[in-house]
Amino acid sequence: MVTKSQIKHIAGLKQKKYRNLHGLFVAEGQKMVKELLNAGFTPYALFAEDPKKLCGATATAIVSPSEIKQMSSLNTPNGVLGVFYQPQPRSITPEDWVVALDAVRDPGNLGTIIRLCDWFGIRHVLCSPDTVDCYNPKVLQATMGSIARVNLVYGNLCQYLKAINLPLYGACMEGKSVYTRQLPKSGILLMGSEAHGISKNLQPLLTQRIAVPQFGHTTAESLNVATATAILLSEIRR
Amino acid sequence: MVTKSQIKHIAGLKQKKYRNLHGLFVAEGQKMVKELLNAGFTPYALFAEDPKKLCGATATAIVSPSEIKQMSSLNTPNGVLGVFYQPQPRSITPEDWVVALDAVRDPGNLGTIIRLCDWFGIRHVLCSPDTVDCYNPKVLQATMGSIARVNLVYGNLCQYLKAINLPLYGACMEGKSVYTRQLPKSGILLMGSEAHGISKNLQPLLTQRIAVPQFGHTTAESLNVATATAILLSEIRR
Repeated sequence: MVTKSQIKHIAGLKQKKYRNLHGLFVAEGQKMVKELLNAGFTPYALFAEDPKKLCGATATAIVSPSEIKQMSSLNTPNGVLGVFYQPQPRSITPEDWVVALDAVRDPGNLGTIIRLCDWFGIRHVLCSPDTVDCYNPKVLQATMGSIARVNLVYGNLCQYLKAINLPLYGACMEGKSVYTRQLPKSGILLMGSEAHGISKNLQPLLTQRIAVPQFGHTTAESLNVATATAILLSEIRR
Repeated sequence: MVTKSQIKHIAGLKQKKYRNLHGLFVAEGQKMVKELLNAGFTPYALFAEDPKKLCGATATAIVSPSEIKQMSSLNTPNGVLGVFYQPQPRSITPEDWVVALDAVRDPGNLGTIIRLCDWFGIRHVLCSPDTVDCYNPKVLQATMGSIARVNLVYGNLCQYLKAINLPLYGACMEGKSVYTRQLPKSGILLMGSEAHGISKNLQPLLTQRIAVPQFGHTTAESLNVATATAILLSEIRR
């Protein structure tokens, strides 16, 4: 059984301030919950309409569709909802490429970038404090479970980038074509916001500005930040 | 002045069946309206809170924020709303690459793919009838104006792909690495739905199956269809 106060508590986790206050987040769907459990995330509570969908884990309570709907962020909740403790960010081991995000505010973009990092074997993502929270429900959905395998660290990017002793490649409209660059075995790929690019205080730290060249006679202004990240990570790994 | 019945008519265009019935669609924002006008789209009506924002075009009516809100699909309308005639699809001139989409249902993904095609100079996109409507408000927003420069054609993909005499490259999980392929100067890139891949009836038409290889020890299942398109178009053009 799930009590009204529990439902209220969990519904409150849709808001970042309550997530941070309690150090918890909500993951929805059988696949996402399974991937978090497999990756060693500690569950605070697990709810399911059908306990078989928890893949061996014990449900805190069997819930009705209307109860799960009250806790869910989805328009059509899918019968499994897990509340997990937010993991401590792991320290960054700079033997490989790291992605750094400066003010990426769209939840779908951040989720897609986390999914991309997982695909390309990038283990660490540094985020400026004004990047959207990775435990935002829309971010989590867009990661398709990849949140379980990528380490996200929020903090002062300027300090972090100075502390990590790796060449820093910034994606900029006026950068050199990434197709003609020799990229090293390890480095940091810094992506700025679509609206404002890379912050002024980070510009002096850049080793090199890189760009995805434009083709054809177009007046397209820019690429979406997630698709630009896709192409740059592909270039780094190919 | 805008009448109540006009407002009702335009608000109705949020629905695909009314858009198709009237052959119209709604574009919002100064930049989008400007790009459509520049590209030669025929306006049916132009509304603005401030007529200066129409860049020289004549407003059908100056409207109040509350009037524009009733017509708008945006949570925060931005003062300029244009109603345009849907252009007749142009015939496909297969001297270059063409993108074909099989059941891409997410509006954000379709909009992002149109923006990518614009960036990479791809002029024609073929869509299966169950691909989301390109005049859906969420698609239009995600194109960032690129809808003005890319020709979208909806129809029976099987018939179209047979009629266009170009090699057909299908994005498939089990395809050959795109990094090791020699891609021709022209062809068709076929992207399937994230959930179901490329339809069974189209599989026999494929010249080659290609994929973006996965890196690192991950259990990530797939890439988002828009990010996969980004990487494949980059490989085609680089």
